Amino acid sequence: MTPTERTRLRREHQRGSYDPQSIYDILDATTQCSVGYTIDGKPYVTPTFHWREGNHVYWHGSSASRMLRKATDAEVCLSVQIIDGYVMARSAFHHSANYRSATLFGRAFKVPEEEKAARLDAFVEHLWPGRTEVLRPMQPQEIKATTILGLEITEASAKARSGPPIDDDADYGLPIWAGIIPMTQVVGAPIADPRNLPDLAAPDHIINFTPDRTSQ
Amino acid sequence: MTPTERTRLRREHQRGSYDPQSIYDILDATTQCSVGYTIDGKPYVTPTFHWREGNHVYWHGSSASRMLRKATDAEVCLSVQIIDGYVMARSAFHHSANYRSATLFGRAFKVPEEEKAARLDAFVEHLWPGRTEVLRPMQPQEIKATTILGLEITEASAKARSGPPIDDDADYGLPIWAGIIPMTQVVGAPIADPRNLPDLAAPDHIINFTPDRTSQ
Repeated sequence: MTPTERTRLRREHQRGSYDPQSIYDILDATTQCSVGYTIDGKPYVTPTFHWREGNHVYWHGSSASRMLRKATDAEVCLSVQIIDGYVMARSAFHHSANYRSATLFGRAFKVPEEEKAARLDAFVEHLWPGRTEVLRPMQPQEIKATTILGLEITEASAKARSGPPIDDDADYGLPIWAGIIPMTQVVGAPIADPRNLPDLAAPDHIINFTPDRTSQ
Repeated sequence: MTPTERTRLRREHQRGSYDPQSIYDILDATTQCSVGYTIDGKPYVTPTFHWREGNHVYWHGSSASRMLRKATDAEVCLSVQIIDGYVMARSAFHHSANYRSATLFGRAFKVPEEEKAARLDAFVEHLWPGRTEVLRPMQPQEIKATTILGLEITEASAKARSGPPIDDDADYGLPIWAGIIPMTQVVGAPIADPRNLPDLAAPDHIINFTPDRTSQ
């Protein structure tokens, strides 16, 4: 393989993208994100859960949360990464990872009081369709105690790598095992709260749960 | 349950910790972290792999990486989070997650040229014991093309939650399924590179791989 061919092949496997659907798909494939923000010019990163509605992404927490207060009306960076595998090459240098990642930048806004209940319902319904109607209804003081931040998806990029390792030409002749070690996040069997009422079966939205909402 | 008892119970399940071993254990349980840094006062978050040696944590990348250049001799925040499950309560408000997280702050330093090969070997050996000796040896230009950043673990905190949901007293009488949906990151069966030499078996360090180095 010539260096040019190698570059082309590498590009096929590892691409950056700015198209909204690629970004939506990565955001929808996991609930886990990391929000970066600054306090007095110092970087902070807080892991949290996010959900997407249209061209907005949201996250939430206690209204007492320092992170949420500091990120409100401030520049944030929201980062999502899913590791799909370790890429085992014939040299240490060409070891890599298969992954999907999205990075969003912008100014986070606070969801107004009157919209919070609808946003929280949407979060629960995205993950567990039908759950909001079986839950004890939200209380006004609970909604008040919850802050939701939103970010319009305007400045965003997606990156992904897939496929086998790309080694130096000469190294393909070496008797070294190369390939992929796949990684997946799996959902285990639900564990009932010992304090559940007797004979209460786990509903379908629990049994069929997947955090990957691209498949829904 | 009185509010005081509830607070005590909550504390048992969700604790913060500053002791080094708790922080080491979380850092060692995954390779995935997010590094936060600032460029012109704006927050950036880059997902990457880390590894720990004693009281230092390291991450690496291309010497051309803007992230690594901007984080060198600069304040960073390194964040690790492992999700162990979704905590399904009887009200939306008490839904939560079981997790382990660690957050480190400090000034990242560049690992000097003469120490880079040893650090990279340590990274590979931590994850795949015995792999460095079977790989094609590192070339000087590869070491040069790699930048490694380090952070001394001085300002760090760990947080974790485990166990069942903690609901409001009155809600335990409702016929709502509550409990845990466990989440685990699992290692799949290795996929050989189609360009491997014939009859090359995956070595033990591939077959037995786990990213959780606390068990090693």
